[in-house]
Amino acid sequence: MSDLLWQKPGVAVDAQIQKFLAGDDVLLDREFFLHDIAASTAHAEGLQRIGILTADELAGLKRELATLTEDFRNGDFVLDERYEDGHSAIEFRLTERLGDAGRKIHTGRSRNDQILVATRLWLKEKLARVAGLSREIARVALDRAQAEKDLPIPGYTHIQRAVVSSAGMWWAGWAEAFIDNAIRAADTLELVDANPLGTAAGYGVNLKLDRAHTTEALGFARMQVSPIYAQLSRGKFELAALEALGSATLDLRRIAWDLSLFTSAEFGFVALPAQYTTGSSIMPNKRNPDVIELMRATHASVAAARTEIEQLLSLPSGYHRDLQASKGAIFHGFSRGLPALELLPALLANLEWREDRLRAAIDSGMYATDVAVEAAIAGVPFREAYKAAAASADSAGQGRTPESSLAARVSPGAAADLRLEELNARFAALGA
Amino acid sequence: MSDLLWQKPGVAVDAQIQKFLAGDDVLLDREFFLHDIAASTAHAEGLQRIGILTADELAGLKRELATLTEDFRNGDFVLDERYEDGHSAIEFRLTERLGDAGRKIHTGRSRNDQILVATRLWLKEKLARVAGLSREIARVALDRAQAEKDLPIPGYTHIQRAVVSSAGMWWAGWAEAFIDNAIRAADTLELVDANPLGTAAGYGVNLKLDRAHTTEALGFARMQVSPIYAQLSRGKFELAALEALGSATLDLRRIAWDLSLFTSAEFGFVALPAQYTTGSSIMPNKRNPDVIELMRATHASVAAARTEIEQLLSLPSGYHRDLQASKGAIFHGFSRGLPALELLPALLANLEWREDRLRAAIDSGMYATDVAVEAAIAGVPFREAYKAAAASADSAGQGRTPESSLAARVSPGAAADLRLEELNARFAALGA
Amino acid sequence: MSDLLWQKPGVAVDAQIQKFLAGDDVLLDREFFLHDIAASTAHAEGLQRIGILTADELAGLKRELATLTEDFRNGDFVLDERYEDGHSAIEFRLTERLGDAGRKIHTGRSRNDQILVATRLWLKEKLARVAGLSREIARVALDRAQAEKDLPIPGYTHIQRAVVSSAGMWWAGWAEAFIDNAIRAADTLELVDANPLGTAAGYGVNLKLDRAHTTEALGFARMQVSPIYAQLSRGKFELAALEALGSATLDLRRIAWDLSLFTSAEFGFVALPAQYTTGSSIMPNKRNPDVIELMRATHASVAAARTEIEQLLSLPSGYHRDLQASKGAIFHGFSRGLPALELLPALLANLEWREDRLRAAIDSGMYATDVAVEAAIAGVPFREAYKAAAASADSAGQGRTPESSLAARVSPGAAADLRLEELNARFAALGA
Amino acid sequence: MSDLLWQKPGVAVDAQIQKFLAGDDVLLDREFFLHDIAASTAHAEGLQRIGILTADELAGLKRELATLTEDFRNGDFVLDERYEDGHSAIEFRLTERLGDAGRKIHTGRSRNDQILVATRLWLKEKLARVAGLSREIARVALDRAQAEKDLPIPGYTHIQRAVVSSAGMWWAGWAEAFIDNAIRAADTLELVDANPLGTAAGYGVNLKLDRAHTTEALGFARMQVSPIYAQLSRGKFELAALEALGSATLDLRRIAWDLSLFTSAEFGFVALPAQYTTGSSIMPNKRNPDVIELMRATHASVAAARTEIEQLLSLPSGYHRDLQASKGAIFHGFSRGLPALELLPALLANLEWREDRLRAAIDSGMYATDVAVEAAIAGVPFREAYKAAAASADSAGQGRTPESSLAARVSPGAAADLRLEELNARFAALGA
Repeated sequence: MSDLLWQKPGVAVDAQIQKFLAGDDVLLDREFFLHDIAASTAHAEGLQRIGILTADELAGLKRELATLTEDFRNGDFVLDERYEDGHSAIEFRLTERLGDAGRKIHTGRSRNDQILVATRLWLKEKLARVAGLSREIARVALDRAQAEKDLPIPGYTHIQRAVVSSAGMWWAGWAEAFIDNAIRAADTLELVDANPLGTAAGYGVNLKLDRAHTTEALGFARMQVSPIYAQLSRGKFELAALEALGSATLDLRRIAWDLSLFTSAEFGFVALPAQYTTGSSIMPNKRNPDVIELMRATHASVAAARTEIEQLLSLPSGYHRDLQASKGAIFHGFSRGLPALELLPALLANLEWREDRLRAAIDSGMYATDVAVEAAIAGVPFREAYKAAAASADSAGQGRTPESSLAARVSPGAAADLRLEELNARFAALGA
Repeated sequence: MSDLLWQKPGVAVDAQIQKFLAGDDVLLDREFFLHDIAASTAHAEGLQRIGILTADELAGLKRELATLTEDFRNGDFVLDERYEDGHSAIEFRLTERLGDAGRKIHTGRSRNDQILVATRLWLKEKLARVAGLSREIARVALDRAQAEKDLPIPGYTHIQRAVVSSAGMWWAGWAEAFIDNAIRAADTLELVDANPLGTAAGYGVNLKLDRAHTTEALGFARMQVSPIYAQLSRGKFELAALEALGSATLDLRRIAWDLSLFTSAEFGFVALPAQYTTGSSIMPNKRNPDVIELMRATHASVAAARTEIEQLLSLPSGYHRDLQASKGAIFHGFSRGLPALELLPALLANLEWREDRLRAAIDSGMYATDVAVEAAIAGVPFREAYKAAAASADSAGQGRTPESSLAARVSPGAAADLRLEELNARFAALGA
Repeated sequence: MSDLLWQKPGVAVDAQIQKFLAGDDVLLDREFFLHDIAASTAHAEGLQRIGILTADELAGLKRELATLTEDFRNGDFVLDERYEDGHSAIEFRLTERLGDAGRKIHTGRSRNDQILVATRLWLKEKLARVAGLSREIARVALDRAQAEKDLPIPGYTHIQRAVVSSAGMWWAGWAEAFIDNAIRAADTLELVDANPLGTAAGYGVNLKLDRAHTTEALGFARMQVSPIYAQLSRGKFELAALEALGSATLDLRRIAWDLSLFTSAEFGFVALPAQYTTGSSIMPNKRNPDVIELMRATHASVAAARTEIEQLLSLPSGYHRDLQASKGAIFHGFSRGLPALELLPALLANLEWREDRLRAAIDSGMYATDVAVEAAIAGVPFREAYKAAAASADSAGQGRTPESSLAARVSPGAAADLRLEELNARFAALGA
Repeated sequence: MSDLLWQKPGVAVDAQIQKFLAGDDVLLDREFFLHDIAASTAHAEGLQRIGILTADELAGLKRELATLTEDFRNGDFVLDERYEDGHSAIEFRLTERLGDAGRKIHTGRSRNDQILVATRLWLKEKLARVAGLSREIARVALDRAQAEKDLPIPGYTHIQRAVVSSAGMWWAGWAEAFIDNAIRAADTLELVDANPLGTAAGYGVNLKLDRAHTTEALGFARMQVSPIYAQLSRGKFELAALEALGSATLDLRRIAWDLSLFTSAEFGFVALPAQYTTGSSIMPNKRNPDVIELMRATHASVAAARTEIEQLLSLPSGYHRDLQASKGAIFHGFSRGLPALELLPALLANLEWREDRLRAAIDSGMYATDVAVEAAIAGVPFREAYKAAAASADSAGQGRTPESSLAARVSPGAAADLRLEELNARFAALGA
């Protein structure tokens, strides 16, 4: 394996330098390996269609690539430091088993478009997952919004008590947020759904590659036409994917903040099932909402992945080895982001409101806005009504209940008119 | 003006604190002022439709808002530190001129949805501009790709000479990049094209506001249903807009890098019109490509704006004053990003290739890949053909010319088959 | 003024390009103008010492530079868009008033070292301010730690009640934090305290400049020896300064978070003087802790400034126009960071604990750790003592008071042994 | 091992949640494991000194901790997913082998101060390495500056030829840069050199822990006094360490950019030993400077680590589980940053200038500044001399040589007066 594919004879190899060059590439390539095999299969088919491979050679390559897939899945083939990277491992294995057919697989291909197509397939898979999870989260939120539309909760601005709100409003807010996140992920998936295979090292190649075939075989919506742009999209598409993920994890950070406060003793609005909490190594009394806190922390990892790629991309056009670090970055971002989103639907479905505590937190001043608006309806200029209500804010609650306040909250989207049907319609339009 | 709208009697005002609270808000609000007036007009119309304002009051308000627009445009009204912010300035002016009608304008509205709707309109305008500029840039690139498809230029990877390329390929790459950037901006515009006006402080209000009217009057595609989400989208939509801008400025950074190298004495591939260069204060011999360098620097400002907002948004749901800083951030990002993109179409249209230098930079080793691929076509396994070509890389050029290499580059998207018709079709689908 | 100093005859000037090149440079230069004048004065003295200027010429230059200082300070000279930048403005004025002496001032100097030295002086001033404010904050915290060492407050981890703590412990924590921040700022000041004047455009000049004189005259601790490094330090030193500021604003973010929670109705631990709060435009009942929230938001601006410069600095050695953006970035970071830190000492000195609420929040489970540790002292292996205490956490408080818990908290640094004398000693070592 | 130390009976464990909570903690803890063992040893000694452990118990614990160290080093003990984290693994092993002595080790300690002290020791080690490597790099640069002080190279600004420079100047610039980086690392090491062990969960403990002993035994310069600050410093100190590393990797990015250009065919100034380059998988002619490019990419990883931690740290005081992610972040930053710096001294020592190419790149216009300055010395006002030289820039070189230009570059720090003795003195002051 030490015989690097591109190595020139007579060049001494320095172990420290080799280690630096390799980084943890080969381990990361495990993540992209099956996508690389799938793309290699499509590439081989394309080569046969233009006469570079015989039908027999193609059959052999497809058989061995299928075997490798299986061996990798069940652990009989381990991708490790014996190989320079996943790409070399595939070519090495095919050559070892098939001889010349293996030596032909790389015809018209560069490691550049090989890694591009494998990561592209991977990004598509991950973006579909972000979209799907966003839909799941929106579904839970829509359902609970409907079920709890009459449950009063205190509404805050500045973490200060503001006006009466409802659980229905709270849930509807997250529902609309994650509908948007699903759209964002789907838009991004569409943006990156372009096949870079066949662009070689960024300048194409002197072969009439059948890119239409590989585009279809790999399920891409279109061909990425320009080889120059294929290289320019390295990092750019990774960033777009991380930004779509980040749209969801940023909302996750805010919902986690709500829950972090709501599960404190002082707020005490929400009870979490015990499996979402952990103990302390020294304080016997503690049950800590660690799951919520790690959810809150998730966006930082997604942001870090963005930073890593964005800082790299101050480069001229064309491939540069700097871009190697982008692989680890997307893996980091998605391997933190997705598991956090995956836990959210069940957590949201299972959290329980403590109604007594919610009700107790609604104080009389929270009706002052209602008082002012009612006066405005009655003809008092709002700015005067506001001043009058401010002067008597403490007595604003007389004769009012949370329920009466909610029943009067009739502006479109508010507690008495949640417009869930509009949100359900947008949800339905998301597709499966 | 020191009589703050929300101020309570008897509270001493501390000048240093007031200055800290104000920041440069009122100056920034100049940027959003006309949008605020437009939204105030729509809001007044809505109030009249539900009986809060009389027809006369509405007529007065509309007249004064139109006058204020004109006064602001021609400098007769200056928004400055005499006002707390732009919102207060509008209400103050209306009250000063109209009395009670002015005191009624804020009925059913909060500064929260007021700033949301003004910035939303502003973001839509800016995103449309990003889309439009991306189209302009793609247009120039498509045209030059067609015109210069046969002009050989050296192709690089790692800033090392790699293979023969063409000006056509280089331009086609940027064309496809900016077509994607236009799509990205349009997708984002669609995402944010939702009317937050009528969500008040994030909990709606006890008034049947006519949100359908304001949505239509302000040209929004839809209502942002949930008041909770309206607040959650503060910052989130700003980030999405900056990310769409950043997609374009990141490509700008890379094209600027190409041009920075190409205009160096050592490469010498490109001549820039003199107006794009500046002199040195000490070195009489210098003509520096400052425009290109400031273009390259632009993405840093967009990234900084992203950082500023993203770091703020670790907050529970609901409004928090922290979000005030997001206004300055989007202004910073777009006020740097758009002017840089605006200069690009003309710069690209005017840059001149120095064909002799391009040709001189194509050395014989750059044909080695052609040699290897030809051998592969002839049946030699590619890996062996590669080794043979590597051994004789220096003699690879014998009998070859840049033109012959380009003519043989027949893989789809490459020099001999640029597929500009496909790119033109995607361009046409962008709409106006 | 349109006659740019470095302009070449016959080059048409494009207004849009000129605007792009200028940016808001000249407005930003107001910030650095007096430092530029000071450095110009020292430079002129140096030129006279090596015979480039006569004594008379020097006298004239010094007189006019002093006049310009005064004119700028009292508004008789306004640095605005009529000038390309502050540097040009100075040379223009001197030439206008003194003729040849003005035309000589730039001998042996470049705009590169001119801006370097002006920003360096500015950074030194700002870092000294960060150090000074950190000391002030630490002083308040140390004093209140001493005064309130016996006041029980609930101690939290995970925003969950953990163990009994004391106001003394809370204050001592911030004291030690800001002592470190003061040291960090002082270390950074020392790092950047090197004179770049006399390095010209990064390659020195064919003149025996008296750099020892300018170093001393401008109060630098040493000469920055290498002209190459002088250029490399552009941006690097700005980052170092922002990082020192960020160390303080990051702690500020955390103290603001504490206060944001503590001033909520649910916690209710702290009462803020009314001048630190503001009202709502729609909700008459609100008093919002906006000052605290803007303090919390401050670090985002410092981080944004860092991002802007760091993203620029992917460049070869030598000056590049990209670096222009670093001026705006440091101005943004410090113009947000310093005012926030400036408000903190008085805010901390004035905040009032609500002792009843603090005491009410200490529940019986918070003694469970004490119970377990006492059992461990009595010989029960800690892990067993922990389990026993966990089983009876609710009854842990029997016979215990916050005061008894604090009195027993004897580990060094804890409530019963705050070691304020050690912190006071570190504080004293900070100097003035 | 499934018996978590802090687990409460009767709580069902959800595998997906457990996996999310664990993350890759236990694998990361391998990095900190020996530091954790060292700190556990010191903690046990401290417990014996205050009577919690008998001399026999301490002897047993020290013996087993020493055995564990050895087993871990030679692979007989593998820290893997069987354990919750490294801390639990140590306590589990001690309890398994020693019974009650193992159950006592956690007396007066929390996982919070346990991880704090282990990472603190790790950070100190890494910062010492940054300082050491910076010194090594500065040493190479100082030596080559002395050896090559008379070798002319072209000096650039804006990647445009500017004036004649020397290899000596280039090396001296990097030397001064890395002397500063060494100082920065040392300052940061001093800042973090404070012992957090004995602060428990951030509130101390009801035991007179012998913190003076653990401080001395672990080689800390001082005790971190406040338990509150110990928790506040989590993340803050990690950021400070990454910033010190980043100061060096940012300079590395710039030196890598120089070398990336210098090794291009167009510049051709530098020849790299073959082991620093790699081949292409498709292009037989390529030798790519991948080592240089990965060096250039390194800072992005350090910046990403910063982002990850900084984004987390928007939290109230006290421990929060969010902070778990900081461990992976510092590991990522240093595991990329240090290997890149480690390769630099040899690379710098081995790179070879191609003198003919350097000389060929010095064109006649590069003497124009010399001409202008000479005229200024002769009494022509510089601004006029500049204009005259600009008009005749192309003929500026007549009768001039690179050597004559360098010989006249007499400003302090410039080619003819490098002041290496001053840099050597600063270097010597760094200590070992």
